[in-house]
Amino acid sequence: MTPFTRQRSRSVVALGETKLITEIGRWLGSATPKSPHGIGDDCAVLAGTPREQLITVDPVIYGEHFDDRIPPRGVGAKLFNRNLSDIAAMGGRPRAAVIALALCNGTKIEWLREFYRSLGNLARRHRVPLIGGDIAHQEEGFNASLTMIGEATKDRVLTRSGAKSGDWIFVTGKLGGSRLEWHWKFTPRLEEGQWLGARPEVHAMMDVSDGLARDLHALCPKGTRIALSANQIPISRSAHHLSETTGRPPLEHGLTDGEDYELLFAVAGRTKPEAFIRSWQRKFALPLTCIGRFVKTRAVSPFADEIDLSPYHGFEHLRGA
Amino acid sequence: MTPFTRQRSRSVVALGETKLITEIGRWLGSATPKSPHGIGDDCAVLAGTPREQLITVDPVIYGEHFDDRIPPRGVGAKLFNRNLSDIAAMGGRPRAAVIALALCNGTKIEWLREFYRSLGNLARRHRVPLIGGDIAHQEEGFNASLTMIGEATKDRVLTRSGAKSGDWIFVTGKLGGSRLEWHWKFTPRLEEGQWLGARPEVHAMMDVSDGLARDLHALCPKGTRIALSANQIPISRSAHHLSETTGRPPLEHGLTDGEDYELLFAVAGRTKPEAFIRSWQRKFALPLTCIGRFVKTRAVSPFADEIDLSPYHGFEHLRGA
Repeated sequence: MTPFTRQRSRSVVALGETKLITEIGRWLGSATPKSPHGIGDDCAVLAGTPREQLITVDPVIYGEHFDDRIPPRGVGAKLFNRNLSDIAAMGGRPRAAVIALALCNGTKIEWLREFYRSLGNLARRHRVPLIGGDIAHQEEGFNASLTMIGEATKDRVLTRSGAKSGDWIFVTGKLGGSRLEWHWKFTPRLEEGQWLGARPEVHAMMDVSDGLARDLHALCPKGTRIALSANQIPISRSAHHLSETTGRPPLEHGLTDGEDYELLFAVAGRTKPEAFIRSWQRKFALPLTCIGRFVKTRAVSPFADEIDLSPYHGFEHLRGA
Repeated sequence: MTPFTRQRSRSVVALGETKLITEIGRWLGSATPKSPHGIGDDCAVLAGTPREQLITVDPVIYGEHFDDRIPPRGVGAKLFNRNLSDIAAMGGRPRAAVIALALCNGTKIEWLREFYRSLGNLARRHRVPLIGGDIAHQEEGFNASLTMIGEATKDRVLTRSGAKSGDWIFVTGKLGGSRLEWHWKFTPRLEEGQWLGARPEVHAMMDVSDGLARDLHALCPKGTRIALSANQIPISRSAHHLSETTGRPPLEHGLTDGEDYELLFAVAGRTKPEAFIRSWQRKFALPLTCIGRFVKTRAVSPFADEIDLSPYHGFEHLRGA
C-alpha cells in the first residue's frame, strides 16, 4: 500500500496536528503511557537505573527502507525491529522509545494508523513503551526515526571491539536475499544477544546490517585478517532464489546483501566451536554457525576454501547519481 | 547558504558513506567520544544514573525549520538548542545526544561541515557529547533529528501538569517576531529552568514553541480559564518590527508567533509575584514577567485589560494545502 493519497479527506491534513496526535495516542493504545511518562510533555521521563544505558537511533525512509510493496505494518515492524536489533547486538535489554515523524500533507490516515498499530503491538510484546516523540511537516516523502533506550543486562555491554587474533567468527541464522522479504519480516535476536552477552568467551559482537563482508571489518582486530570458510557461510533460501534472477552466486548474496539483522560475533580461540554450538542448541532452535577465524595478517590460511574478500563491497547508503 | 549543490565534487556523494562518517568525526572533534562511548557501535553507551531520565527529540527539516537564508551554523544551533530548551522546560540537565541524519546526494560538504561544527561547539559548551547516530539517504531535502538525554536535577521533574486555580502565570524573556532571527538565534533557558525546578512554588512549566496563546492551554488546569493582562505581555522588538510589515498588532505577534523558546510556568497563588521576581533578579538579568493567572472558569476577570483568547490560534505544523 502506498503511504500517500491525493484525496484530502483521507489525508492527515484533514485531521490537523492536534487531532492527529490524539489519534496516534489511540492507535498506540496502552503502548504509550500518559504524561508525564508518555507523549505530551516537553520531554519523556524514564526511571533512573544504575546499569549502563544503551541508545540507538534508526529511521525508515520512503524510497530507501521501504516502498509501496511493503504493507504499513511491515514498515512499523521494520522500524521497531531495526532498533531492537541494535540493542540485541550489545547484549542489552530495551526499555523505551521515542519517535520523530516527518510527514507530508498527502500522508494517508489509514496507512499511518496501520503503521502505528504495528509499533504499538511490538511495543507491548517487548514491553518497550513509546514514551514520546515529535511530528513535523516535510514537503514530500515519509521519514520516521526511532530512538530506543536500553540497558546492559550484565556488568558489561558487548561492543564491536574486543576480538583477538585466533578468535572464532560466528553468525546466527542464514544470510542473503533479505530484499525479497526478510528486510521487513526479520526477527531481532534479543534473547540470543542477551545470552551471548552473558558468556565471557564472546569477545565482540554486532548485527549484520550492511552485509557480512563489509560489516566483519568492524570486528577485525589490528594485525589480523578475516579468514572465512566458503562452505560454512549459511546461505538463506532467499539468497538462492535471488541468485536465479540476478545470475550472481548465492554465496555472493550471502556475503554482501545486507539487512540480515543476524548477530555476528567473535569467540575466544581456546573455545571449541562444536561445544559452544552444543550449549547454544540447548537454548535456541535458531541455527548458529562458525564461519571462520581472525588470523594473523600473514598467517597461512586455516581453510582450504578460504574466501578472497578483496572483491566484495558492502552496501553504500549514499550512492553516486 | 543553500545546503545543496549540483557539483558532484562538492557534494557528499563525492565522499561516500565511509569517508563521510570519518569526516563527521573530525568536524565534531572532542564533542564525540570514541567507541564504545561514541559513534561507531550499534548503540551508544551512557553511564547509569539513579535520577529520572529525560528524553526529547526534535528535528530540523529543510523548508520547514530553516531555508537558504539561515547559515548552516545557525541550523546546527537551532537543532541543538531546540532540544536543550525541552530539557530546560522540565528543569533538567542535558547529558548526551544522538543524531539521525537523512541526506540527499546533492548535499554540500561545506554546508554539512559548518552544520556539524556548530553542533560540536554547542556540545562542548554544554558538555553534552554526541555519542551516536545514523546517516541515511533520502531522495530530496535535509532532515536532521536529534534525540537528547537528560536527567532531573532535583527529586522531581517539572511537567505541564500541576498548575492550580489561582496560580500566577509567568514567562521569561520577550515574545513574538521570532521568525526574523530569534528562531535560530535563541538562547535555551537551561540555568533558569533548573533554578525554577528547584522552587517548590513553581507548579508546572513548558517552553513556548507554538505561540503563547496556544501553548498556555497545556498548563491550564481543569475548571479554570486563562486570564492574561494585555499590558503585561512582554513584546519583543522583533514583534514590533514585524508588525510594521504585517499590519497586525505587536500583541498578536507576541501571542501567536511561536518559536519563542521562553519558559512559561505557573507559580502558587499564595506567592507574591513581585517577591518572586525580586528573587529571580538576584540571579538572572533575563526579564521575567507575571502575565496573568489561572482563574475559575466563571470567575470575574481579575484584570481590566484581560485578553480575549478565543480568536487566537497557535501554529499548526501540518497545514492545509
